[in-house]
Amino acid sequence: MAIIRAEISPRDQETKDKIIAELTDVLVRYGSPRENTHVLLYEVSHDNWAKGGLSYTRRAAQAKES
Amino acid sequence: MAIIRAEISPRDQETKDKIIAELTDVLVRYGSPRENTHVLLYEVSHDNWAKGGLSYTRRAAQAKES
Amino acid sequence: MAIIRAEISPRDQETKDKIIAELTDVLVRYGSPRENTHVLLYEVSHDNWAKGGLSYTRRAAQAKES
Amino acid sequence: MAIIRAEISPRDQETKDKIIAELTDVLVRYGSPRENTHVLLYEVSHDNWAKGGLSYTRRAAQAKES
Amino acid sequence: MAIIRAEISPRDQETKDKIIAELTDVLVRYGSPRENTHVLLYEVSHDNWAKGGLSYTRRAAQAKES
Amino acid sequence: MAIIRAEISPRDQETKDKIIAELTDVLVRYGSPRENTHVLLYEVSHDNWAKGGLSYTRRAAQAKES
Repeated sequence: MAIIRAEISPRDQETKDKIIAELTDVLVRYGSPRENTHVLLYEVSHDNWAKGGLSYTRRAAQAKES
Repeated sequence: MAIIRAEISPRDQETKDKIIAELTDVLVRYGSPRENTHVLLYEVSHDNWAKGGLSYTRRAAQAKES
Repeated sequence: MAIIRAEISPRDQETKDKIIAELTDVLVRYGSPRENTHVLLYEVSHDNWAKGGLSYTRRAAQAKES
Repeated sequence: MAIIRAEISPRDQETKDKIIAELTDVLVRYGSPRENTHVLLYEVSHDNWAKGGLSYTRRAAQAKES
Repeated sequence: MAIIRAEISPRDQETKDKIIAELTDVLVRYGSPRENTHVLLYEVSHDNWAKGGLSYTRRAAQAKES
Repeated sequence: MAIIRAEISPRDQETKDKIIAELTDVLVRYGSPRENTHVLLYEVSHDNWAKGGLSYTRRAAQAKES
């Protein structure tokens, strides 16, 4: 069994469906029963997700300015 | 003390209030001080929650077709 | 379906088995299919868990002193 | 490296930017490389966040009544 | 960017290295920059992980008995 | 109120106590009541934490070789 949680940028449903399918396939290849492999996607706003002390929204704004 | 996080399907507030109260009661019964028992509900969209490599949205669609 | 994660103080297995069973029962009462209701317990050391800026280990030490 | 997740009440972006910056600074002071220090804020609705078996929405309503 | 957390049964390091590499590849295929794709594995004891109200330890014991 | 979870490399207790105190101070400065501000540290093994598809253990080994 496996429970996978992925925090990602917002995506369209078709892409999310592929991500879900392929993350599942990885765990199944290493022994997790397919019907007991769970995936949850959290689409985190770039306002609330930061690296280096700056949200990705602000990082993008700074990259544009420079 | 205890912190309980539950990922659930979206529910109405009355049901969520009952789930919160009863999850809390369980931990209190086993020694967690009531006022230091915390519950957070995450209502996850069926588009972002998958089992067996298929989102619950797609599982429901397939079940209808067959 | 539901996935419940509970951060608790370390407990003996018998108590953990009861907590698992009763947390599950709550979600099943509100519509989650029993065999698709998951519980994970995280037994967090009091050295790594804090309230008010002090670990529970230090809070217990201070309570003893006073 | 460090990954910080904070569950908070909803806040305006200016406040969130400060929280992000200062949480990051803490970990950097204790050795986490700045550009490998990540923060994610989850703004949890008071309808879904509870203490003592009551959501913060209901706790606020009760405090007003009394 | 992406942060993937997978709760899995305990595995040997070689298998974990492969799981890490392949989960990363999935997100990279869908646009996450490789060096900003993070994976954390939580190897959860079967004593603390339950389905249907019974820990996997107890489920295995019951399966053997029957 | 606030619940902060930080995934960090293993540290000594004195450092962890400082991290806990200072993370708490940040949230208190922005309105979270001190006694309702919680911190949990998860000290994640470098075998189970990866960036770019390689665990930090392997990244360190490669850095040494080159």
